Amino acid sequence: MHLRLTASGLAWNDEVPPPRVVACLDSVLRGIGQVMLQDNSYAGLLFLVGILWNSPLFAAGALLGTSVSTATALLLGADRTTVRAGLYGYNGALVAIALLYFLRPDALTWGCVVLAAAGTTILQAAFARMLDTWKLPALTAPFVLVSLCAFLAAARFGRLETTQLLPTAGLPRSVAVEGIVTAATVVQGLFNGVAQVFFQGNVVTGLCFALGLLISSRLACLAALTGSLTGLLVAWGMGAAEPAIRAGAFGFNSTLVAIALAGMLVRGAASTAYTLLATIAAAFVFAALSAALEPLGMPALTFPFVLVTWCCLLASPHFGRLRT
Amino acid sequence: MHLRLTASGLAWNDEVPPPRVVACLDSVLRGIGQVMLQDNSYAGLLFLVGILWNSPLFAAGALLGTSVSTATALLLGADRTTVRAGLYGYNGALVAIALLYFLRPDALTWGCVVLAAAGTTILQAAFARMLDTWKLPALTAPFVLVSLCAFLAAARFGRLETTQLLPTAGLPRSVAVEGIVTAATVVQGLFNGVAQVFFQGNVVTGLCFALGLLISSRLACLAALTGSLTGLLVAWGMGAAEPAIRAGAFGFNSTLVAIALAGMLVRGAASTAYTLLATIAAAFVFAALSAALEPLGMPALTFPFVLVTWCCLLASPHFGRLRT
Amino acid sequence: MHLRLTASGLAWNDEVPPPRVVACLDSVLRGIGQVMLQDNSYAGLLFLVGILWNSPLFAAGALLGTSVSTATALLLGADRTTVRAGLYGYNGALVAIALLYFLRPDALTWGCVVLAAAGTTILQAAFARMLDTWKLPALTAPFVLVSLCAFLAAARFGRLETTQLLPTAGLPRSVAVEGIVTAATVVQGLFNGVAQVFFQGNVVTGLCFALGLLISSRLACLAALTGSLTGLLVAWGMGAAEPAIRAGAFGFNSTLVAIALAGMLVRGAASTAYTLLATIAAAFVFAALSAALEPLGMPALTFPFVLVTWCCLLASPHFGRLRT
Repeated sequence: MHLRLTASGLAWNDEVPPPRVVACLDSVLRGIGQVMLQDNSYAGLLFLVGILWNSPLFAAGALLGTSVSTATALLLGADRTTVRAGLYGYNGALVAIALLYFLRPDALTWGCVVLAAAGTTILQAAFARMLDTWKLPALTAPFVLVSLCAFLAAARFGRLETTQLLPTAGLPRSVAVEGIVTAATVVQGLFNGVAQVFFQGNVVTGLCFALGLLISSRLACLAALTGSLTGLLVAWGMGAAEPAIRAGAFGFNSTLVAIALAGMLVRGAASTAYTLLATIAAAFVFAALSAALEPLGMPALTFPFVLVTWCCLLASPHFGRLRT
Repeated sequence: MHLRLTASGLAWNDEVPPPRVVACLDSVLRGIGQVMLQDNSYAGLLFLVGILWNSPLFAAGALLGTSVSTATALLLGADRTTVRAGLYGYNGALVAIALLYFLRPDALTWGCVVLAAAGTTILQAAFARMLDTWKLPALTAPFVLVSLCAFLAAARFGRLETTQLLPTAGLPRSVAVEGIVTAATVVQGLFNGVAQVFFQGNVVTGLCFALGLLISSRLACLAALTGSLTGLLVAWGMGAAEPAIRAGAFGFNSTLVAIALAGMLVRGAASTAYTLLATIAAAFVFAALSAALEPLGMPALTFPFVLVTWCCLLASPHFGRLRT
Repeated sequence: MHLRLTASGLAWNDEVPPPRVVACLDSVLRGIGQVMLQDNSYAGLLFLVGILWNSPLFAAGALLGTSVSTATALLLGADRTTVRAGLYGYNGALVAIALLYFLRPDALTWGCVVLAAAGTTILQAAFARMLDTWKLPALTAPFVLVSLCAFLAAARFGRLETTQLLPTAGLPRSVAVEGIVTAATVVQGLFNGVAQVFFQGNVVTGLCFALGLLISSRLACLAALTGSLTGLLVAWGMGAAEPAIRAGAFGFNSTLVAIALAGMLVRGAASTAYTLLATIAAAFVFAALSAALEPLGMPALTFPFVLVTWCCLLASPHFGRLRT
């Protein structure tokens, strides 16, 4: 048997390639794992289980989306190693879930899921090329742009019907403090913050995701929970609405920022402080982008994560303490 | 006589340069040709005839705009070869037509046309320098940015009066399917889609433009018509409003995407599929950008073309099948 | 004594470094000077005096902001020479003033000022790295982005209260000419235009700033006044509202563009014309960006300066007449 199970999933001798279907399945699971920046099929499988627990529809969507975007990359002749690491898959997973969440899941929407997943593959390659100038990863930017394009297009395309879950278009205005934060808010918000990375508002799903991270990397798991908690505490301290805090809305971008920076910066006191500052910033940027998109009735998705992480990675070579 | 007529316009011996006025006129016509990415004076002349057929005002504007932006480039000492290929002219042609279309064509507006055309020259050079990092062309980005700047400024400048043709500022909301698409919609939409590249809603003008493309390049002509048709079919299938489909609103960006990619990618099945996907995407991006600009009451112009084409060109080196 | 006073502030022998507190104070003053692109402590001191004259609150904020952003750079191990030139300080000064101006200056806002000033340091490094590809300076982009983020976040954060000075969110629409421009409008607008670089609407403050520029560079002072006047005249000619012209709203971006380009381009007739075109453009871009941000109820701040200057610097190598 030339197939081996390794700590991060399947591997094999290059001389005797594995059955293609097995390799593809492993790539797809790694693609789901890459949503939380884990090149690990077991983590991907657990993430999928977590989604399935919350909603079979979204789990089916995630599988389809990841498969389509991975297949598109193969058909266009993309680099095999990149495909095998799931790097052409994670945006497809996310775009599928988001479209099924915000658009009515009829036949036309499933068609759009296929098209959108293929589109993320092209955007992924475009971002990879552009951001290579500064050695930055594309993160979830392709997912964010393709999803916003689909939701906005619904305003012109009569057959593309949205669910009631998209924000209502309006002009941003100041808010009063709303609701009272209790211990239950904090506990639920903490795990929902992790679950919302895949747009799942479910505590058990959040636990599954945390477990998946633990299997892949203890550091990533710790970073995720700390990030979610930081986002939640910032939102609480600044007077955000309690239902949004409980739903994990202020946590998932901070979660992703923490995972990304913890994995990419050297360890040390300065890096920890820098990452903490970034997770705090992510909560502010989420609030700001949500408000900025209000006149369009659009959600901020994981764009705050993308912007804050790009910025922190771009800045890091200028700061000597983050290099040593 | 050292002047020669070639397949793409005037040429001459470098030792005996032609009368300056002749060279300038040829550059200006090539500039008009470059709106559809054709470095060809005959095509430019036919495009001008097509505009003249629809509106002498716009034809005069296109001539003035192209002349001003070309002259600005010469005065600032830009590279002669680039100027001669019309690459400093096409944004001036477009900005002039757009300003005369959306602003009341009084003396102040004509003054703004001159200023705006000069401005596109500077933006063209700025984009050329920035995008050179990724070997991307500026396309019509300078035109889009300068035009949006002029229209938006009208909200602060009391003497700058808009026509009723700018979209009304409002918040985007979902639409119902509106009107019935007939064979007449398809035929008119097809040619209007080509004509709208210059913001002309006229079937005969569209025919002139297609003829101009044919003279310059059969591939470009085929791509333009296919692109226009694809955009139209996507809009129809997705339930866009019939009057917009008939007017070619969903076609002109796809037309330009098809011309650009057909001319820049290697030929083959994968490239054809890739280009088709891009023209479909352009129709979605046009719908999305139109909605996104609705709170500002701004038109999307050819920005969808710019974004989709940049993205596809950026991504292409990552896909082996597009290279061979 | 190894400390020396030079034409631009303190200097010393490298073998015997100065008392740290003196070096820090000098860096902070240079940071305030860099708001107008002057690496000069005396100019910074005069700018601070000008702000103090108008408002002790803003002067305290400017000092705190510059100190925090400079200290953050030192703690993260940034390049000492860059820190000493005040290049990590000026965005902190501006962000502090802007937050204290547009948010109610309570304890939470002061906390946000500290966080925001630290944030500008990270953004400054990120922009420095990204823009190094095209040899562009970051200008005040970090300040603009962090400030807009804070103001927008107030729409989600109930404890972050805005003052009544933020624009009211609304949809942009065309305006009529409003008010009559007199000699008083022009004189006050000219100096307010310089003062508004620090968001101070005060003629004496503007005079202090002009004096500070004169000490640092006669060319910069001349450019600033010419820029402010050009912005004002464009706004007047185009029919902007008289109160906005008098307040210097159309002048401060043109002021900064003129200072930046006068200091960075070679001298000559073409460069002068180019700079003049840029200051005219800045007034248009300010009008456009103000309108574009209207649905968000956000101010344009110095973003028009950043965009126009980036564009002109990016374009300049393509124009032979600006190089010789």
